Amino acid sequence: MSIAGENPLADFDAGLLKYLSQFVTENKLRRFEEVLCERTRHITIVLEDIYQPHNASATIRSCDLFGIQDLHVIENRNRYTINPDVTLGSSKWVNLHRYNRPDENNSPGCLKDLKDRGYLLVATTPYTDKLLPDFPVDQPMALLFGTEETGLTDEAMEMSDDRVRIPMYGFTESFNISVSVALSLYDMVTRLKRSDVEWALPESEKQELRLQWMRKVIRKHAMLEAQYYKENKDF
Amino acid sequence: MSIAGENPLADFDAGLLKYLSQFVTENKLRRFEEVLCERTRHITIVLEDIYQPHNASATIRSCDLFGIQDLHVIENRNRYTINPDVTLGSSKWVNLHRYNRPDENNSPGCLKDLKDRGYLLVATTPYTDKLLPDFPVDQPMALLFGTEETGLTDEAMEMSDDRVRIPMYGFTESFNISVSVALSLYDMVTRLKRSDVEWALPESEKQELRLQWMRKVIRKHAMLEAQYYKENKDF
Repeated sequence: MSIAGENPLADFDAGLLKYLSQFVTENKLRRFEEVLCERTRHITIVLEDIYQPHNASATIRSCDLFGIQDLHVIENRNRYTINPDVTLGSSKWVNLHRYNRPDENNSPGCLKDLKDRGYLLVATTPYTDKLLPDFPVDQPMALLFGTEETGLTDEAMEMSDDRVRIPMYGFTESFNISVSVALSLYDMVTRLKRSDVEWALPESEKQELRLQWMRKVIRKHAMLEAQYYKENKDF
Repeated sequence: MSIAGENPLADFDAGLLKYLSQFVTENKLRRFEEVLCERTRHITIVLEDIYQPHNASATIRSCDLFGIQDLHVIENRNRYTINPDVTLGSSKWVNLHRYNRPDENNSPGCLKDLKDRGYLLVATTPYTDKLLPDFPVDQPMALLFGTEETGLTDEAMEMSDDRVRIPMYGFTESFNISVSVALSLYDMVTRLKRSDVEWALPESEKQELRLQWMRKVIRKHAMLEAQYYKENKDF
């Protein structure tokens, strides 16, 4: 923890935030705080090579609505495109991390990175006995979802630490991808919020998001930031 | 309850079923029985005038997977079209009831019919304090979902008996329609199956579905049925 006043950069950011907040309505600032309290990085979502834009778009919307701040998208053969009619602006509030180097398998890099950051990699698949409602939520988790037709790649399956299945009672082989993401989040986020797990964001990350979100709602934020730095160049 | 042998039509249907079952694999017949045990009409879904084919298609798939036998689709301005890449064959297993008289508001007819059959009409909307996980599942329920942009019509809202809201923690106004349907079913069906409510289908309805499903998997069923009736014309 840094002590107030010790870190000039932290002070400076706080100053910029305060300056910018003049240009955001009270109502919106209050909404930011309400949503920030519900945001988490304890659970994150990884989409591997999905190609239907409505699935990508509905997933961003579900992430925002369940308080999931990070969405990781691996694009190997398929480009990730979104449909504004489906996202309804939700892409402004979620951090989208794209892995799309051309002519390369982008899955191992993304998954290794998440593993290094302490995430348990959990593959969602119909081929396991471990059911969603019984899956523990105490560890930080990255939930992996594969492409519409063939599911996760062999490589992603091998790199994952565990598997989980959504209960199904019908003939069809699996749920639609965006439905699978939403069901997994509904179940896990509900249980997470009832648990003792420390799932909320630390204050430093909340500060970053405040700045990020203000920049989304203030149309001339670049001009205003330049103005602020000019006025405060002594710092 | 009818006593066995009293109803010649029931006997006859049973004979036809037995005859047709010769043309279905053991494996498939066993699968029919497993799925039948999980089927329910205690909860049903009503979609009012949705227009994105992927929403319609993902909803059929979710109904099948959660054991919901009936899906009611009101088509006023929008035609209901499905996308086979999204349904993955699920439309074979669910009873789709369409309300689409031209130049007519089809909502009141559909909703009145469901009310007359004893269903509580429950509108899903962000504008209520009643949360999904707290909503009782003891009464037969029709869950109403409105169009992508504007939600349920005023008429449908007025005809409904109650309202329910899916918990949301983000900025976006609502979940995608097919996601809303799936989340509602996941929550309610899970609680229904743990309850004492008699949600399973009566044997007579199971018989009807066996016949209906056999007709879906036997390619030449019409020819075989004609053959059966010819051989059994003394009945």
